[in-house]
Amino acid sequence: MQSTKLIALDWGTTSLRAYRIGANGMAQEKRALPWGIMNLPPIGPGSDLRSGFDLALAEACGDWIEAAPQAAVIAAGMVGSAQGWKEARYLELPQTITDIGQQLTSVSHARGTLHIVPGLLQRGALPNVIRGEETQVVGALSELGQNEDVLIGLPGTHSKWVRVQDRRIVHFDTFMTGEVYAVLRRHTILGRTMLPTDHGDDASFERGARVAMSEQGQAGVLSTIFSSRTLGLTGELDGAAQPEYLSGLLIGHEIAALAATRRTTGLDPAPRIILIGDDQLCERYRKVLALHAMTTVNIAVAATERGLWQIASQAGLLP
Amino acid sequence: MQSTKLIALDWGTTSLRAYRIGANGMAQEKRALPWGIMNLPPIGPGSDLRSGFDLALAEACGDWIEAAPQAAVIAAGMVGSAQGWKEARYLELPQTITDIGQQLTSVSHARGTLHIVPGLLQRGALPNVIRGEETQVVGALSELGQNEDVLIGLPGTHSKWVRVQDRRIVHFDTFMTGEVYAVLRRHTILGRTMLPTDHGDDASFERGARVAMSEQGQAGVLSTIFSSRTLGLTGELDGAAQPEYLSGLLIGHEIAALAATRRTTGLDPAPRIILIGDDQLCERYRKVLALHAMTTVNIAVAATERGLWQIASQAGLLP
Repeated sequence: MQSTKLIALDWGTTSLRAYRIGANGMAQEKRALPWGIMNLPPIGPGSDLRSGFDLALAEACGDWIEAAPQAAVIAAGMVGSAQGWKEARYLELPQTITDIGQQLTSVSHARGTLHIVPGLLQRGALPNVIRGEETQVVGALSELGQNEDVLIGLPGTHSKWVRVQDRRIVHFDTFMTGEVYAVLRRHTILGRTMLPTDHGDDASFERGARVAMSEQGQAGVLSTIFSSRTLGLTGELDGAAQPEYLSGLLIGHEIAALAATRRTTGLDPAPRIILIGDDQLCERYRKVLALHAMTTVNIAVAATERGLWQIASQAGLLP
Repeated sequence: MQSTKLIALDWGTTSLRAYRIGANGMAQEKRALPWGIMNLPPIGPGSDLRSGFDLALAEACGDWIEAAPQAAVIAAGMVGSAQGWKEARYLELPQTITDIGQQLTSVSHARGTLHIVPGLLQRGALPNVIRGEETQVVGALSELGQNEDVLIGLPGTHSKWVRVQDRRIVHFDTFMTGEVYAVLRRHTILGRTMLPTDHGDDASFERGARVAMSEQGQAGVLSTIFSSRTLGLTGELDGAAQPEYLSGLLIGHEIAALAATRRTTGLDPAPRIILIGDDQLCERYRKVLALHAMTTVNIAVAATERGLWQIASQAGLLP
């Protein structure tokens, strides 16, 4: 077991992940706790800790800090939002990925200092923000050559697509695909005819993705989603197939829009792509990307830990 | 007060509206009850009525039937669905509007016969259905000349756009705009920063509609809706403005898609339009249509009653 060189935290809205990182930059131990910033542990009356943030930090890695007091502690994610421990103000695009580590925010905790990574803000007619994903992007890029242009996809509740040119983050988009899927399924008429799915129905998933890229797909998400129900009414899609179809439809609209805006703005229609996220979800995205002839796709591993290590290195926090 | 020539029902999922219609084809009395087909009244143990449908009918218009036993009783809406009183099977497109009345379904009730109007089905890669709206379309068209082509919009929970050529219904589309707006506001992160609105903020509504038709709007609904939140983060849209903005955005995407598919299929980009529905909602749609240079817009009055009267006339149910 390697000794501790960095204690790194991925601290979001609903969960807190902690990584004890050794001299090789790899996680030696990992922990996951439910102490997201909207779900902090209650402080007992006799505690000497000042806040739920302090207590959550102590529970996540108090023993690591005690055993390696010289190791820096760094965090990315919503812990740096206005609702977090201390606001780490957004940096505006474009942003060189090696500069992010120069702009950390510090907050004192019971046993030292926590360094917080800032999120990124893209101004414009439709502003966009990321917080936490910038760190994963840095991690995914740590394995690439110096000047490679790449499109980084982070599928999830809110999918993010980040464009990197010459190691500068120049643009990103957000698609609320995951959250919209969940509410359509749980709270609209579309869910009423759906049955549980085992996520193995590739044909229905692909059917949805192809509808989104077809001429009919031009009617847009608000219109095409209704077909999840009507294909059931006409006996073409049973209840278990409908969730898969809807998933394919929504991811299909996301990728179709991404491809269309790249064409409109004269960008390479088949860029090098790196996906970061849940393996199964990344595979679903990879299938839809392939339908759009985007086939140079890699799935990043351990992007969060790598990113926190890189940023700590940029900040001079490593021994 | 005119004597009763027809008793007409608009019987949906959550409500039941009854109209007592006189010799001039106009409603002499109107009633609204909560007895939609998913919310029928319970039958008491001593009742001689066979079902909640019978009881709801008796409460809605039992006295009218008793006073005018010669008047036919006709109903449109979900009462004719598979979950309704008796299924009135969908008629397939194209469908001449004067033929709908030839294809009613009958069901016996405690005091006679109820005639039920069938819904319409459009087959194809993405099937589409309407049930109830076909009657409103017939009503709205009753005032038009014989051969006028027209696009009929029925904004609501599920907006329907019905294309009529030579008095034949040739195509229709569904947009789940109203339902999607409601779930985005109630159940997603977008709602968290929203405050109640008085629906008077035209500027924010129009801003959303213009985003949908702009180059940024090409990213599609899944992407643009996130700006309702980020424009709040950057201080450009306060909490009370966000619901209006989101409403403009969604209706804007609906109309933009409608306009785009008309262009793609070579249809008149500025057709004659009739809107049917809630007055305030129709006004919102009229504003967005105007942004798309669709300015020949009328709002139909009493389309349901007129439609039921027309269909009853086609069916030979009028004295």
